[in-house]
Amino acid sequence: MTARRPGAAGDEAPKILDVPIGLHATGTRRETDSMGAIDVPADRYWAAQTQRSLIHFSIGDDRMPKAVYHAYGHVKKAAAIVNGRAGRLPAWKADLIRKVADEVIAGKLDEHFPLYVWQTGSGTQSNMNTNEVISNRAIQLVGGELGSKSPIHPNDDVNMGQSSNDTFPTAMHLAAVKAIHERVLPSVRDLQQAIEAKAKQWRDVVKIGRTHLEDAVPLTVGQEWSGYAHQLTQAIDRVTAATQGLYELAAGGTAVGTGLNAPPDFGEQVAAEIAKETGYPFTAAANTFAAQGGLDAMVGASAGLRALAVPLMKIANDIRWLASGPRCGLGELILPANEPGSSIMPGKVNPTQCEAMVMVCIQVLSEDAAIAFAGSQGNFELNAMRPIIINNFLHAATILGDACAKLRRYCIEGTHLNRDQLDAYVDRSLMLVTALSPVIGYDKASAIAHRADDDGTTLREAALASGYIDAEEFDRIVNPAAMVGQPR
Amino acid sequence: MTARRPGAAGDEAPKILDVPIGLHATGTRRETDSMGAIDVPADRYWAAQTQRSLIHFSIGDDRMPKAVYHAYGHVKKAAAIVNGRAGRLPAWKADLIRKVADEVIAGKLDEHFPLYVWQTGSGTQSNMNTNEVISNRAIQLVGGELGSKSPIHPNDDVNMGQSSNDTFPTAMHLAAVKAIHERVLPSVRDLQQAIEAKAKQWRDVVKIGRTHLEDAVPLTVGQEWSGYAHQLTQAIDRVTAATQGLYELAAGGTAVGTGLNAPPDFGEQVAAEIAKETGYPFTAAANTFAAQGGLDAMVGASAGLRALAVPLMKIANDIRWLASGPRCGLGELILPANEPGSSIMPGKVNPTQCEAMVMVCIQVLSEDAAIAFAGSQGNFELNAMRPIIINNFLHAATILGDACAKLRRYCIEGTHLNRDQLDAYVDRSLMLVTALSPVIGYDKASAIAHRADDDGTTLREAALASGYIDAEEFDRIVNPAAMVGQPR
Amino acid sequence: MTARRPGAAGDEAPKILDVPIGLHATGTRRETDSMGAIDVPADRYWAAQTQRSLIHFSIGDDRMPKAVYHAYGHVKKAAAIVNGRAGRLPAWKADLIRKVADEVIAGKLDEHFPLYVWQTGSGTQSNMNTNEVISNRAIQLVGGELGSKSPIHPNDDVNMGQSSNDTFPTAMHLAAVKAIHERVLPSVRDLQQAIEAKAKQWRDVVKIGRTHLEDAVPLTVGQEWSGYAHQLTQAIDRVTAATQGLYELAAGGTAVGTGLNAPPDFGEQVAAEIAKETGYPFTAAANTFAAQGGLDAMVGASAGLRALAVPLMKIANDIRWLASGPRCGLGELILPANEPGSSIMPGKVNPTQCEAMVMVCIQVLSEDAAIAFAGSQGNFELNAMRPIIINNFLHAATILGDACAKLRRYCIEGTHLNRDQLDAYVDRSLMLVTALSPVIGYDKASAIAHRADDDGTTLREAALASGYIDAEEFDRIVNPAAMVGQPR
Amino acid sequence: MTARRPGAAGDEAPKILDVPIGLHATGTRRETDSMGAIDVPADRYWAAQTQRSLIHFSIGDDRMPKAVYHAYGHVKKAAAIVNGRAGRLPAWKADLIRKVADEVIAGKLDEHFPLYVWQTGSGTQSNMNTNEVISNRAIQLVGGELGSKSPIHPNDDVNMGQSSNDTFPTAMHLAAVKAIHERVLPSVRDLQQAIEAKAKQWRDVVKIGRTHLEDAVPLTVGQEWSGYAHQLTQAIDRVTAATQGLYELAAGGTAVGTGLNAPPDFGEQVAAEIAKETGYPFTAAANTFAAQGGLDAMVGASAGLRALAVPLMKIANDIRWLASGPRCGLGELILPANEPGSSIMPGKVNPTQCEAMVMVCIQVLSEDAAIAFAGSQGNFELNAMRPIIINNFLHAATILGDACAKLRRYCIEGTHLNRDQLDAYVDRSLMLVTALSPVIGYDKASAIAHRADDDGTTLREAALASGYIDAEEFDRIVNPAAMVGQPR
Repeated sequence: MTARRPGAAGDEAPKILDVPIGLHATGTRRETDSMGAIDVPADRYWAAQTQRSLIHFSIGDDRMPKAVYHAYGHVKKAAAIVNGRAGRLPAWKADLIRKVADEVIAGKLDEHFPLYVWQTGSGTQSNMNTNEVISNRAIQLVGGELGSKSPIHPNDDVNMGQSSNDTFPTAMHLAAVKAIHERVLPSVRDLQQAIEAKAKQWRDVVKIGRTHLEDAVPLTVGQEWSGYAHQLTQAIDRVTAATQGLYELAAGGTAVGTGLNAPPDFGEQVAAEIAKETGYPFTAAANTFAAQGGLDAMVGASAGLRALAVPLMKIANDIRWLASGPRCGLGELILPANEPGSSIMPGKVNPTQCEAMVMVCIQVLSEDAAIAFAGSQGNFELNAMRPIIINNFLHAATILGDACAKLRRYCIEGTHLNRDQLDAYVDRSLMLVTALSPVIGYDKASAIAHRADDDGTTLREAALASGYIDAEEFDRIVNPAAMVGQPR
Repeated sequence: MTARRPGAAGDEAPKILDVPIGLHATGTRRETDSMGAIDVPADRYWAAQTQRSLIHFSIGDDRMPKAVYHAYGHVKKAAAIVNGRAGRLPAWKADLIRKVADEVIAGKLDEHFPLYVWQTGSGTQSNMNTNEVISNRAIQLVGGELGSKSPIHPNDDVNMGQSSNDTFPTAMHLAAVKAIHERVLPSVRDLQQAIEAKAKQWRDVVKIGRTHLEDAVPLTVGQEWSGYAHQLTQAIDRVTAATQGLYELAAGGTAVGTGLNAPPDFGEQVAAEIAKETGYPFTAAANTFAAQGGLDAMVGASAGLRALAVPLMKIANDIRWLASGPRCGLGELILPANEPGSSIMPGKVNPTQCEAMVMVCIQVLSEDAAIAFAGSQGNFELNAMRPIIINNFLHAATILGDACAKLRRYCIEGTHLNRDQLDAYVDRSLMLVTALSPVIGYDKASAIAHRADDDGTTLREAALASGYIDAEEFDRIVNPAAMVGQPR
Repeated sequence: MTARRPGAAGDEAPKILDVPIGLHATGTRRETDSMGAIDVPADRYWAAQTQRSLIHFSIGDDRMPKAVYHAYGHVKKAAAIVNGRAGRLPAWKADLIRKVADEVIAGKLDEHFPLYVWQTGSGTQSNMNTNEVISNRAIQLVGGELGSKSPIHPNDDVNMGQSSNDTFPTAMHLAAVKAIHERVLPSVRDLQQAIEAKAKQWRDVVKIGRTHLEDAVPLTVGQEWSGYAHQLTQAIDRVTAATQGLYELAAGGTAVGTGLNAPPDFGEQVAAEIAKETGYPFTAAANTFAAQGGLDAMVGASAGLRALAVPLMKIANDIRWLASGPRCGLGELILPANEPGSSIMPGKVNPTQCEAMVMVCIQVLSEDAAIAFAGSQGNFELNAMRPIIINNFLHAATILGDACAKLRRYCIEGTHLNRDQLDAYVDRSLMLVTALSPVIGYDKASAIAHRADDDGTTLREAALASGYIDAEEFDRIVNPAAMVGQPR
Repeated sequence: MTARRPGAAGDEAPKILDVPIGLHATGTRRETDSMGAIDVPADRYWAAQTQRSLIHFSIGDDRMPKAVYHAYGHVKKAAAIVNGRAGRLPAWKADLIRKVADEVIAGKLDEHFPLYVWQTGSGTQSNMNTNEVISNRAIQLVGGELGSKSPIHPNDDVNMGQSSNDTFPTAMHLAAVKAIHERVLPSVRDLQQAIEAKAKQWRDVVKIGRTHLEDAVPLTVGQEWSGYAHQLTQAIDRVTAATQGLYELAAGGTAVGTGLNAPPDFGEQVAAEIAKETGYPFTAAANTFAAQGGLDAMVGASAGLRALAVPLMKIANDIRWLASGPRCGLGELILPANEPGSSIMPGKVNPTQCEAMVMVCIQVLSEDAAIAFAGSQGNFELNAMRPIIINNFLHAATILGDACAKLRRYCIEGTHLNRDQLDAYVDRSLMLVTALSPVIGYDKASAIAHRADDDGTTLREAALASGYIDAEEFDRIVNPAAMVGQPR
């Protein structure tokens, strides 16, 4: 007796019809899986397992991000190519799956991926959703019967050589890489450049520095903003470094990392196909047990997002404080007035872009913590916390990227200096006394500053009154413009 | 010269038309605010400030939860009633605002509240969205010109006696109270009862206890589940206690807590109206400066959600571990098989409801941390982190409530015991030796247990071989059913 | 054959010697446990299990807080009393244990409790440390041989009717209650009163309010500080509410909650003894399985500490911002100059107490998150994350209490107002325009404010120039002192 | 008139005496700073500012880690060398400071650095503590008068060209680099190798895999442990990458980043000296404003520690679960019995090293969150959250390194396999059915597995009964040893 899997290699190639996407049916359609039969909406491609998940996991409104399915499209396409090339799938099946996978990648089947984030921890239900939709759409394209699983079976064909356990983290990595490179980094780079442009523009504007919120020695506005720009430059480097681990894909490990039911080099070939298709340097994970039992690369990449949020929060806070006022605050910066600030106080303008950014940063920090927590909760051959990790990651990436774009466009680019205020502070500050320190010593300089503060006089008055220094020397040494140095 | 506010008391009462909700126009409509004019979609009630916010804050896909607007409907209605009663608003204006507020409360105007979460930190834009929609809908109802702000002005009439600074936290508290009482607690109570029912059902089934994951002395399954039930009962109490602070409303404090532009008892009256309308015991905050400068009651209420998540995570983890197997795990529980568990391993059933719950709990813990972080970031007369706080709170409440409902329905209620496995463990365990301790002392009892472990014998065999005890006494003392006690 | 436990009731009562605490021996002493023999320092009371733990767990420098041992002293004393009263322990043994337990409670044996925090998750090693020290000290007091476990056996006598599983959380609750009531609340109450005193002192000093960091309508300094005071008052209430769960003690549950080897009412009696001794209303936990499988009451109590940290961080931040300057910041407050602020900038004074408080609050928030995380990680009949929870809790309580005391003493009490600056801001602010809104409408008021801002004129000048209002009416309405209201 | 700083270049070189460390005085000594005079303990080198800090900041028991002072010793030494070389300090002063700095580096003056963690946010007080101790010790060495600040002045000489603002983060980076390289990485590498050795030893032992805690297809024990080893290898890479930013030193920026009072290349030279002395590739920060306004490199390095904690928690959890039992758990691993596990259950052995590791990992995750939070709270030219950041970082590094060493020594190295249990599980598992899937299809394979589960038969029995496959083919295909593959 020879067991024979239905729809295996050797079947006749059916004609692929030119049927546009869409099921023009009403009511329900019966679909089956190993648990039995269940009705699904007749106008949807999904089948039994998706439907069961919809029922069992309607928790809140969080849906698995579409980006995960787009990434899964790449995985299914690559697997079909590799399986077809090796003859495990008939060429026509491989081509058919590939064709539908392209529709998935392009987002054309998005409405057929309805599942919730809070589902099975392996992401199996989203994998099966993908398998089911590709199966039924492929069946439609060859004029078959929806739900028949023939000639394209969701498990035997679309999922061939795969498990959710290796493909879901593969799709996670792919979706995360695209989010970083296509959503986060462009926005951050634009913001960095906008800030750097301001730093150059204001290179020589002397202002008073502040440490501990208290008056300190002067620097230029350009120097201050060069600090912001450099923090972002370094954060971008951190993101890039933190993203490296994502290029290793679990594909090929199948159920527990051993690659059961997949040929030996399947993972390498799938990774190569995905790399070719997407342009990112994906490779097969060096150790599939690590790649499936943990999600350390995702936790690492999340630290990259955090590396952005931390300086962005500082920058946004600085800007809103420097713009505080207009008359009872620091008042050094003038932000664009994008909208009325108050429902009760007429004429009020608030640093709303900065506030949005601060909130986004707090959110990113907390989502990063959720990712790390979930990343620690794997057991044996699976970390079953995948949905929470990819959902938080993509959410954090999205709001961070968008917030950078908005901050740049609606705040940074339109920010101006209040030169009168900047000058007044420099004139007024007592901390210029620091320049005297190398000449008369810290202790005498300190006495002068305290004297001026107590008496409410200028530093110059107090200095001359002290007798420690004469007017000529004072004027030579205490020169704010000369105190800002030539820092690296 | 006497300044005269347009549309003030004394205006003629126009006829209220019976116009269904909806604007059947296409293209755009010009609206204005203090920044000037701007085009808005002609089929939407919102006006200039909403439109500006849409442009400036399209960050990710997070929208201010509709529950906030429904709550705001209550605030606007209450304010209109109080203002009308005192004659500050003409009766017809008060009635008109009230009528539209009822539409807001009922969710009928939901599609007119499109704003993003990541906006101004005071929530002013969502307050103005509400004011604008009510204004224009009211104008429509009296046949006026949309955007004219006449006869119902968004600031002067709808927002009368109010600021975003006092009303947004008022709406936050109201939305949070409703989420707790109408979404979270019912689901948790149902879950608690389902668990308690199991505890009663399995009251006398003796099983082996486990501490440090290691075999310990016996207890009954019912005792174990009574612990789960009791943890939830106490968590419900914690939620209730943590929610008390939400009943204090900031309304009446207006811009900075002083109540400028509102009459002295405005907050008390508004709170009383909201209490009457909703049935919850709302009162005016004892100190408006605290209520607007901080959001401590929200942080406190979030600790209530966390108090649920912590035991729920433990319970969900216990259940999935106890159900692990079926043949290579602990195997004490048999969970309902809701869906196929694997895309590659046929016949696999996984504890997916527990996994979803664990992820939800991690999410709630991280959102709670975000709320606490944001709660600490207030400055002076305003904590400008309101949107992040209410969004995380309502999200956490929603997924927690829903996950409890799903866990109960699709896991707890269908869980069965594997009696053979339970019995086998009790027979096998060495820790029954503990019962000998009071008789022969800890040291000899310990020697017996180690001996049995080393030799792979039963505890009885090792005990008798030790000579410390005879068979009769052993059988009398080492009786699992007698060891489970009569605990409180 | 009748098994006979050594040292059981009926033994002769030995004479208790008057031996001061201390072992005047050098080198090592041999001690034994069920794993065999091991050398311990001859001048220490601890025995084999403590010594093993010292070797196996020398991780970092964190030692189990002494407060845990002091609390354990109460537990051991109470158990001995109850066991003695019931005749399970001979009276002389009960008295002897009680006597030594009093030495433990008083901290006289502190140096004999050397164990690390990072040990077994049940706290068993610290329980055994306590049992061993009490055993050997008791043996010393009756002239016995150290390490002989006779006549007072660490397990059979000192630990009688107990397990670490029920007594360690009992000690945790007791230590936590004392920390809250004796270390945290007194300091916070003193701070609250110092702030309230300032609020009263400055009740009528009008200042400009700030929302979004931007100029807003006026309030009094007293009102602002009344907000701080009220936030603390409410936080104290939250701490009190959050602490209630700590009064339920797990004692009596023994190994897994069933109370095996303890008499039925043991927990109730022990709790009553501890309550009598300490004055706190301790009772036996309603459900021992919940009390040992979870640590929810500790997580709940930690939320109380967080409820303090959140407003304290806001208050500390407000104060350091309001004191920023002295010449280039907000400059409303003058803080005491406790120390030189800079090693390079002479005469600099910084808001260091506020900075310390902010850091303490961040630390408390993160320790609270650690507690919640650990609280979620229980399994079956035990949450084996106890040491991390009690260590973080007591640490957070300690630094929070101490920081409150320092902030009060070295910052709040010596803070003064810069009246000139306060007045100047009120004069300068444009947001006084808000008072015109009810008279001329929001839109006209807004135009006036924008005009003044653009032109750099005073509000009065812009208002009169607008023609919307005349000088007399302006001066009547725009009166800062009248704008601060009579808030509740 | 020419101002003349006391003790400037040109002074006579005094003779350096051979005075051992220590002040043999009792009572107090009077010291002064710009705030005036204060008494300090006569047997301590510290002076006025340290004493003030001790009084004002006695918050809890947390002391600034000694490693910070040792690092500061390097900074002071390097600065003295550079200042001496350039002639800004007389050669004898430079040598004298250098000599004392070597004592600081070697830890010989540790007891003279008593300050608390919770102090000024810039670390100024610890900088001044260092300056004061070096000053007074140097004065002692030349027979001068303690407290005279002559001939070595704490500010003018020891702190020459420096501010706390640039040197404290320099010392932080240096201390952090040493902690990573000298405390963390060696322990983690040893642990990784111990795990890898086990992976090799158990390379061919077939066991059942588990996903979702449920039985899955087989793998070898060696494969499972290779996953652990690889996770650690990758984590080590992440630590190394995350540490790169620490090599950039802020030194040279002085007060606000402009380098005021320091020569232009001071930072580069100081970094070069420190690099030469320590062997680590330190350089001057590319942008001092970024390096002083933020602490992003510290936050980034902390993500490296987290990258270790996440897989370590997974590994520790896996091991304790796999060792659960001995008779009622998974029972695959046998851990060394280091100590008695229970005070009440005789003979109990618990996975205590794993529990300690899990707690350490939770602690590290929370300390990492504290670092990120604090890292976001900088303002303008200073992040004044330095003490909390360095304290958490060094604490996390210490306990993580130590816990790895303990886990390796007292758990991993002594772990054995329970071969009988491993074999029994493989025989019993139903998931071997997966191997049939490519032959008979997923659906039929699924039916077989469900049938076996329902009937309680073996997989083979159910398969043959199904008629889908015959005995010969079954035995050929369902061969666990052949199912574990040849994974990469």
